[in-house]
Amino acid sequence: MKAWRIVAGSQIAGLKLVDETPKALGPHDVRVRPRAAALNFRDLMVINGWYPAVSKDALVPGSDAAGEVVETGSAVTRLKVGDRVATSFFPDWIEGQPTRAKLATALGGGGAGVLTQDLVLNENALVKSPAHLDDAQAATLSCAGVTAWRALFEVGQIKPGQTVVLLGTGGVSIWALQLAKAAGARVIITSSSDEKLARARSLGADDTINYKTTPDWDNEVIQRTSGTGADLVLEVGGSQTIMKSIAATRLGGTVAVIGAVSGPGAALEPMSLIGSSVRLQGIYVGSREMHEQLARFVEVAGIRPVVDSVFAFEELPQACGHFLGGKHFGKVVVSIHP
Amino acid sequence: MKAWRIVAGSQIAGLKLVDETPKALGPHDVRVRPRAAALNFRDLMVINGWYPAVSKDALVPGSDAAGEVVETGSAVTRLKVGDRVATSFFPDWIEGQPTRAKLATALGGGGAGVLTQDLVLNENALVKSPAHLDDAQAATLSCAGVTAWRALFEVGQIKPGQTVVLLGTGGVSIWALQLAKAAGARVIITSSSDEKLARARSLGADDTINYKTTPDWDNEVIQRTSGTGADLVLEVGGSQTIMKSIAATRLGGTVAVIGAVSGPGAALEPMSLIGSSVRLQGIYVGSREMHEQLARFVEVAGIRPVVDSVFAFEELPQACGHFLGGKHFGKVVVSIHP
Amino acid sequence: MKAWRIVAGSQIAGLKLVDETPKALGPHDVRVRPRAAALNFRDLMVINGWYPAVSKDALVPGSDAAGEVVETGSAVTRLKVGDRVATSFFPDWIEGQPTRAKLATALGGGGAGVLTQDLVLNENALVKSPAHLDDAQAATLSCAGVTAWRALFEVGQIKPGQTVVLLGTGGVSIWALQLAKAAGARVIITSSSDEKLARARSLGADDTINYKTTPDWDNEVIQRTSGTGADLVLEVGGSQTIMKSIAATRLGGTVAVIGAVSGPGAALEPMSLIGSSVRLQGIYVGSREMHEQLARFVEVAGIRPVVDSVFAFEELPQACGHFLGGKHFGKVVVSIHP
Amino acid sequence: MKAWRIVAGSQIAGLKLVDETPKALGPHDVRVRPRAAALNFRDLMVINGWYPAVSKDALVPGSDAAGEVVETGSAVTRLKVGDRVATSFFPDWIEGQPTRAKLATALGGGGAGVLTQDLVLNENALVKSPAHLDDAQAATLSCAGVTAWRALFEVGQIKPGQTVVLLGTGGVSIWALQLAKAAGARVIITSSSDEKLARARSLGADDTINYKTTPDWDNEVIQRTSGTGADLVLEVGGSQTIMKSIAATRLGGTVAVIGAVSGPGAALEPMSLIGSSVRLQGIYVGSREMHEQLARFVEVAGIRPVVDSVFAFEELPQACGHFLGGKHFGKVVVSIHP
Repeated sequence: MKAWRIVAGSQIAGLKLVDETPKALGPHDVRVRPRAAALNFRDLMVINGWYPAVSKDALVPGSDAAGEVVETGSAVTRLKVGDRVATSFFPDWIEGQPTRAKLATALGGGGAGVLTQDLVLNENALVKSPAHLDDAQAATLSCAGVTAWRALFEVGQIKPGQTVVLLGTGGVSIWALQLAKAAGARVIITSSSDEKLARARSLGADDTINYKTTPDWDNEVIQRTSGTGADLVLEVGGSQTIMKSIAATRLGGTVAVIGAVSGPGAALEPMSLIGSSVRLQGIYVGSREMHEQLARFVEVAGIRPVVDSVFAFEELPQACGHFLGGKHFGKVVVSIHP
Repeated sequence: MKAWRIVAGSQIAGLKLVDETPKALGPHDVRVRPRAAALNFRDLMVINGWYPAVSKDALVPGSDAAGEVVETGSAVTRLKVGDRVATSFFPDWIEGQPTRAKLATALGGGGAGVLTQDLVLNENALVKSPAHLDDAQAATLSCAGVTAWRALFEVGQIKPGQTVVLLGTGGVSIWALQLAKAAGARVIITSSSDEKLARARSLGADDTINYKTTPDWDNEVIQRTSGTGADLVLEVGGSQTIMKSIAATRLGGTVAVIGAVSGPGAALEPMSLIGSSVRLQGIYVGSREMHEQLARFVEVAGIRPVVDSVFAFEELPQACGHFLGGKHFGKVVVSIHP
Repeated sequence: MKAWRIVAGSQIAGLKLVDETPKALGPHDVRVRPRAAALNFRDLMVINGWYPAVSKDALVPGSDAAGEVVETGSAVTRLKVGDRVATSFFPDWIEGQPTRAKLATALGGGGAGVLTQDLVLNENALVKSPAHLDDAQAATLSCAGVTAWRALFEVGQIKPGQTVVLLGTGGVSIWALQLAKAAGARVIITSSSDEKLARARSLGADDTINYKTTPDWDNEVIQRTSGTGADLVLEVGGSQTIMKSIAATRLGGTVAVIGAVSGPGAALEPMSLIGSSVRLQGIYVGSREMHEQLARFVEVAGIRPVVDSVFAFEELPQACGHFLGGKHFGKVVVSIHP
Repeated sequence: MKAWRIVAGSQIAGLKLVDETPKALGPHDVRVRPRAAALNFRDLMVINGWYPAVSKDALVPGSDAAGEVVETGSAVTRLKVGDRVATSFFPDWIEGQPTRAKLATALGGGGAGVLTQDLVLNENALVKSPAHLDDAQAATLSCAGVTAWRALFEVGQIKPGQTVVLLGTGGVSIWALQLAKAAGARVIITSSSDEKLARARSLGADDTINYKTTPDWDNEVIQRTSGTGADLVLEVGGSQTIMKSIAATRLGGTVAVIGAVSGPGAALEPMSLIGSSVRLQGIYVGSREMHEQLARFVEVAGIRPVVDSVFAFEELPQACGHFLGGKHFGKVVVSIHP
């Protein structure tokens, strides 16, 4: 079997597809035949060495895979051969508050990743896939889906009818769009592309703002919420957007701090939070319990996550390039076993 | 103008349509021309003298009316002539926790009701109606709609994908069905009528149980939730159903105690709550803030509440009889000004 | 080594002290030399066969023991030889919501208990004891302490300055008295004994009510809270007290349903919850995380739990008799290894 | 009667004590004879023109006064002559979420302040003072006390036994120290003065850190919490401390953003929140309900707020100078009527 590994000193160009021997199965382990893996911005950060505290040398990258259980260890009780499953981003964060130990073994970061043709994981690190999804779709729950779920329903505590602002049309934002609409929220979404905004509207977005033609999109949000501001902003932009995200939020509202695609930087003035009573909360994916709650919701509401494109296993570098090109809408997926 | 009043010693038969002089307008008051009023089981309890602590003698009954602002007091700022509004069940419960003072003046109970052709209320006691609803629909938010909202989203804290059990197809249950589905929850509903269950399915119910043919509906709920039980039961039945409602609930789940259409009685064994960690919470409608949040959700999600039937103003006694007959599905409404 | 076992068909008289062989240690197990065990009403229920769904035949009873780690399995990481620990009531409920699986193995109920001279448990089933407590004191955290913690701070969400009502002076009530006072709450406590009430005052109780001389203690609570009612009642009485507990609670307040020392019975009228918006929540001990939070609080605040009396290991039947006699104040403890 | 007013273009030197005519009493108003006013950093910001969106020209400064009701309007029901009361910082924020309207009329900012010998306010803008406090002490609840309460118990949701970090020994920090200890929390406090740290220990602080001799106080907090970090930091420092405050907080913990005594500045890197799941929440005093809850706690726990010094009414400029000198420990108070 083959696996992708990050070779030290390299960036995308240094990803190597190498031959590997399948791992032996411990009593609590499950062997999964992975069919698809979904990429995240974080994978590109790991590959490029931008990610803090990850020893990327020779790491198998990737955190989100879906496939089928093909073998179970002698003590396994949660799963059986034939079950369709996806990986849990943090194998050791089952439920409850995060701790350093629970976060230490994230797939494709603290621990080995999923871009391999044979995957062995503890039975606790897998979640059953919603029956109506194929594996390309199911793979997108692990990181982007769980992040959107946690931002909306754990951190944001969004109630039906409240207003959520989404920045751009990347994987987390499009997941959040679909989840928020299926949960009865109102969605305002921004993009620099009118074409992407039209697509977002067809997925249910109530309002769209082109931030290129309307650079003061924070004021626009205020106006479209009768002067009040949004209940929740999913902030994926970083130093270029954080102050506008705070300005677009209602008194006592929430900004979920998720990413920094516009780059890092000490851009936030703490005073801006005081008069507004705004709450900022950092989000780094979530627990297996959140993944299970998301899967249940996806099943009850019949949600189908948006897959932008599917690349062959051998085309991982091209998939990464497409991702960094920023033209995608929804998730970029790599097919592992067709 | 005319108003209905409850004459002492009487029941439905003693409702009297009497001539009245319109009230004068104080500086903070608003005069509403009510077009429709929705009936609740509680109105029948008041009329029949079953309701605790209400001096029903000569009371104008009814709590839920919708219509148009026709005059505003000199100090009014929240509303203007032409606004379409509905009454807030508790005129003095604006927001926050309930207190005795906030609950003391409930319309058609502690205070005068809405079955009158000319309605004068403090501007704080009214909520703007969702634009896409007619007044018969908008009137149903005040009591049944707010009760369902509070049960699902304040008390039950229902997350998308969770399971809600609804008992019967009365006003609160059908409101809860529509709200729960628009918020991404799974709904199991019971009835003694297969025809009503079919109607509930057409409104989105995921599962239906005929409690006549399946008297152990609590076990059925357990089975249909993979042995776990429901996250929330909206208990409107009273002494005949409360123990089954608890048995149908998952460990740590919630039973919202709303009504007792099957009659009162000391039917609950406290020990039943201990092993299950179940939470019971009584609900008596809600605040104006909840009404406003409901109205916003109804507008965002385009929900149209189910009106079973509309009676003419003069036909209030017939409307009450129809209500008590128990054949209705959704809300029974009285037209005040056509 | 010796252990107590429940012999079928018997009650206290049938408890047998038998010779046993120490259990072998699995890789994740820890051997504890228990020094003390604290009794709970639930142990008497198990011994007497009153407890639902417990196969008591030949069960080792008891759930709360404290002692010292004397041996650790090869894979143990959380504990080391010499650590002072107490048992976690539910070995498999580490954190998060309760589930049937997590509750299935409660010590001295679903699983073997602690009244044994040699105790082998999974390392996850133990919590470090606060340094300033002896083992008789530390043993009382597991069931009574955790129950009081969960009632006050998880279920009741008591804020400093709020009012808590405690019924009687048993183990949970006295624990709750000490915890509530150290957390800045106001405590009203009831008893049939003026002497016990005086002792409760010396432990910090703000108000005391003798329910024998003041049978309408619910009205008395209302009066002593300026007509408002208590924020939280810890209901340990059962059918004889539940309606009074509800009546003593403020609008929107909480009754934590913990026990039924006055016996079971269908005594609760669901309608009583509606007008009052009162919340009833059943409590069956709690998770290891709650135990750890309690231990931390006990250490920070320097709390010393009240031990009523200590019996020798051979005197378990006498200890049970003393417990059932109802003269105790605080916890009844059995010394295992002096 | 006399009042202090801010004269345009000036700073402390421009405060003017002017003769005024007492205001007439509206039907819902109460006349208070103020005995004492407590100063806050915010008053100095208003006086110096550093405060956003306040037209300071000729404004009466000050927000926190305590005194006695001497006259009541014809419609007043909440208060009577002789009641001892303190001002509510936001006269129009009674309860619930903040809104722009509720915050618009803050005393000594959006509206007239309290540094006047005759104070007329709506009855809703006053809270009864705890009986055991004198007016100098009672005046300190309005802003500093409520801010500390909200940070600890509303925003921080501090549970007994958790760890709170306080920066410096100003009014909010010392209030928080007293409240946190009376609520059973553990307190770590910083200062540049060993003498002030000794005083903090005598008030119950568990740990102290001199940030001059230990500039890496964030690491020190991590070490003193067994590597975990604090549950809550009350961040009053601003751009010089915010990143250290985040670093001192546990995964999933909270930084309450309260002030910026070290000055403003875009000092916060949003990425720092992601891996840590830390929550930042801005706090701008609080509602009357929070003030009432604080007053109740102060009464139940017998807390006496720390008054650093009391200046005569005519000495307001000197009091301001003393405040800005930064030598105080606890609250600086001005006596209005002795």
